Amino acid sequence: MYENAGMPKKSNLNARALAAHKKLKGKIATASKIKLRRMSDFSLYYTPGVGAVSTHLAAHPEEAREYTMKRNTVAVISDGSAVLGLGNIGPYGALPVMEGKAAIFKSLADVDAVPLVLDTHEPEQIIETIVALAPAFGGINLEDIASPQCFHIESELKKRLTIPAMHDDQHGTAIVVLAGTLNALRVVKKRKEEVVVTILGAGAAGTACALLLARDGFADIVVVDRQGVIGAGRGTLSPHKQQLAALSTRRRGRETLAEAVAGADVLIALSGANTVSEAMVRSMAPRAIVFALANPTPEIMPAVALSAGAAVVATGRSDFPNQINNALVFPGMFRGALDHGVAAITDDIKLRAAYALAGLVKKPNARSIVPSLLDPRVVKAVAKSVKGR
Amino acid sequence: MYENAGMPKKSNLNARALAAHKKLKGKIATASKIKLRRMSDFSLYYTPGVGAVSTHLAAHPEEAREYTMKRNTVAVISDGSAVLGLGNIGPYGALPVMEGKAAIFKSLADVDAVPLVLDTHEPEQIIETIVALAPAFGGINLEDIASPQCFHIESELKKRLTIPAMHDDQHGTAIVVLAGTLNALRVVKKRKEEVVVTILGAGAAGTACALLLARDGFADIVVVDRQGVIGAGRGTLSPHKQQLAALSTRRRGRETLAEAVAGADVLIALSGANTVSEAMVRSMAPRAIVFALANPTPEIMPAVALSAGAAVVATGRSDFPNQINNALVFPGMFRGALDHGVAAITDDIKLRAAYALAGLVKKPNARSIVPSLLDPRVVKAVAKSVKGR
Repeated sequence: MYENAGMPKKSNLNARALAAHKKLKGKIATASKIKLRRMSDFSLYYTPGVGAVSTHLAAHPEEAREYTMKRNTVAVISDGSAVLGLGNIGPYGALPVMEGKAAIFKSLADVDAVPLVLDTHEPEQIIETIVALAPAFGGINLEDIASPQCFHIESELKKRLTIPAMHDDQHGTAIVVLAGTLNALRVVKKRKEEVVVTILGAGAAGTACALLLARDGFADIVVVDRQGVIGAGRGTLSPHKQQLAALSTRRRGRETLAEAVAGADVLIALSGANTVSEAMVRSMAPRAIVFALANPTPEIMPAVALSAGAAVVATGRSDFPNQINNALVFPGMFRGALDHGVAAITDDIKLRAAYALAGLVKKPNARSIVPSLLDPRVVKAVAKSVKGR
Repeated sequence: MYENAGMPKKSNLNARALAAHKKLKGKIATASKIKLRRMSDFSLYYTPGVGAVSTHLAAHPEEAREYTMKRNTVAVISDGSAVLGLGNIGPYGALPVMEGKAAIFKSLADVDAVPLVLDTHEPEQIIETIVALAPAFGGINLEDIASPQCFHIESELKKRLTIPAMHDDQHGTAIVVLAGTLNALRVVKKRKEEVVVTILGAGAAGTACALLLARDGFADIVVVDRQGVIGAGRGTLSPHKQQLAALSTRRRGRETLAEAVAGADVLIALSGANTVSEAMVRSMAPRAIVFALANPTPEIMPAVALSAGAAVVATGRSDFPNQINNALVFPGMFRGALDHGVAAITDDIKLRAAYALAGLVKKPNARSIVPSLLDPRVVKAVAKSVKGR
């Protein structure tokens, strides 16, 4: 079950993916919802008939959701600065990923998503561009934008837009991680208020995971970056690392990665291939939970982590049990945001979404802590959580 | 034939258009070209398979057309500053028009068009925004942007982009006007080198019509704006009006609208409802050609122009003969630009498109100088003209 037998050879998959994409020349198309067969169709939907709609919306712009694509359309936007695990590969490298995401949006949640890749890495220009193009959209899914710029960009957009903007690498990941952690704790019979959580990686995902777990009441979280534990005594820290340092005041004695992992109940690794050793897992508390989320090669292979004593292991991969995948969140999240017309994805919404996801697994066990991406209940449950009670 | 009997009452059409748009909530949707049913579909088209495509395009961005939506996708962009005849009604007012245009793109030419409406009227910000979002697109259709900003915006984009950017209000209109004028001249048996052409209106469309007719060899063109003939002696002129003044050096003696129209063979009016009188048409040369293109109310009603002696009359309306409509051009123009991978819509392309359109009417007569919007040959002929010989 934990072996790699079901996974096609990487080189083979790459060749098939290239060939399939070359044949398709785009995974996304537009579709007209109207028929234009007679001149009267043009008169009704284009000029002169459309003039009545234009005049109405000029006077009542807040009704754009009632008359236009804004009602069901999200922009999926990247500057290509942190694409998959490939780093800064620019807008053209990012485009097929954004198209894939748009296809998932449509297939799973009937959200119309428009891929947009930006030919700039300058945060202020990214912000200005997105603010300028926002009117046609009901939501902005930020994607694959490097840390730390992603924090400033998202936070400015939240101030300036009246539609929800969500950086999925942060919050989509954090919501699924929280859902998986909650169910894993049920499996090992531990309480969130008592466990020690160590997070490897202080990028977009690591930061958002730490903040969301803290918001949910996890009381002891330490975040480790390449220079060690982020805490008091690290000197000048960037704003998002200052937030993380504040979470780990109880653990300031621990300075190295090894020390931060020793005795931990939960290890959430977002740090890259093969960065967690068998010895590190052995040093954790009994009935340890290990999330090794680097793609495609995890920080530690599940079989190794299990043999080192971990009770529950999750990865980002579809060929192992417990796949932690943002696609469990973003389709339903924007489906719900569009349907309920919310102006922002708040912390409360994120927490409700995590609990909704976790709740879909009635009896969690070591190999089932999150629902499957193909489970049709997922989108509905997440979308409903946006509305609240 | 020239009466208004077939046209639904305006108020009735407006009510029906509002109701139809409210029911639809958007005329455009996205469509996924791939099926996502099994986990292996996600692996092939999303992560990890898509990583091979991303890596390839990061190294070879010039191949984006071979692997992505860029191959078939155009952005339809407006700032809402000159929407239909409604003026500056902003991005939300513009959105239903851009959606209608996208639906026409798809229905007539299978071009995937994405409506984008910009929440800024500042030319430099419009330019920067479009340059930033260009990578996903194979072409930029600028729409309903006010004069004179539209000239600077288009010209800067042509310098900075490697994909074609075309302001349709200028060039789509000019191409159809040229096609119609060429066929109208055949009807009245006059030669372009000898006729006197008067153009009313020096906005986006009037300017582009004057320049394209001149480029095609029309030797005597005078353009009139609200202050009279644009020519030497008008003092300081904006750059686009300087170009127009240079066209009319042979007629500098004429200063008023009435004087500029008197004796003209061709009158192309782009100046607004009811701005051409019966007396003006009477003052024109024998066998006069009158294009009254304001929508929905022309500068002069066709029946009036005909009774005043005009031999050929065209309008922008579908309920009269000789509809001069940009939709005869833009779907085929971008179809051809995408298929042939051209970097710009040049004057040569525009001229070829006009001749291709004109050539579809084998035997022009006073009631048939341009093909119908529903003629399936139109898109193919215009698209082919992009390629050239």
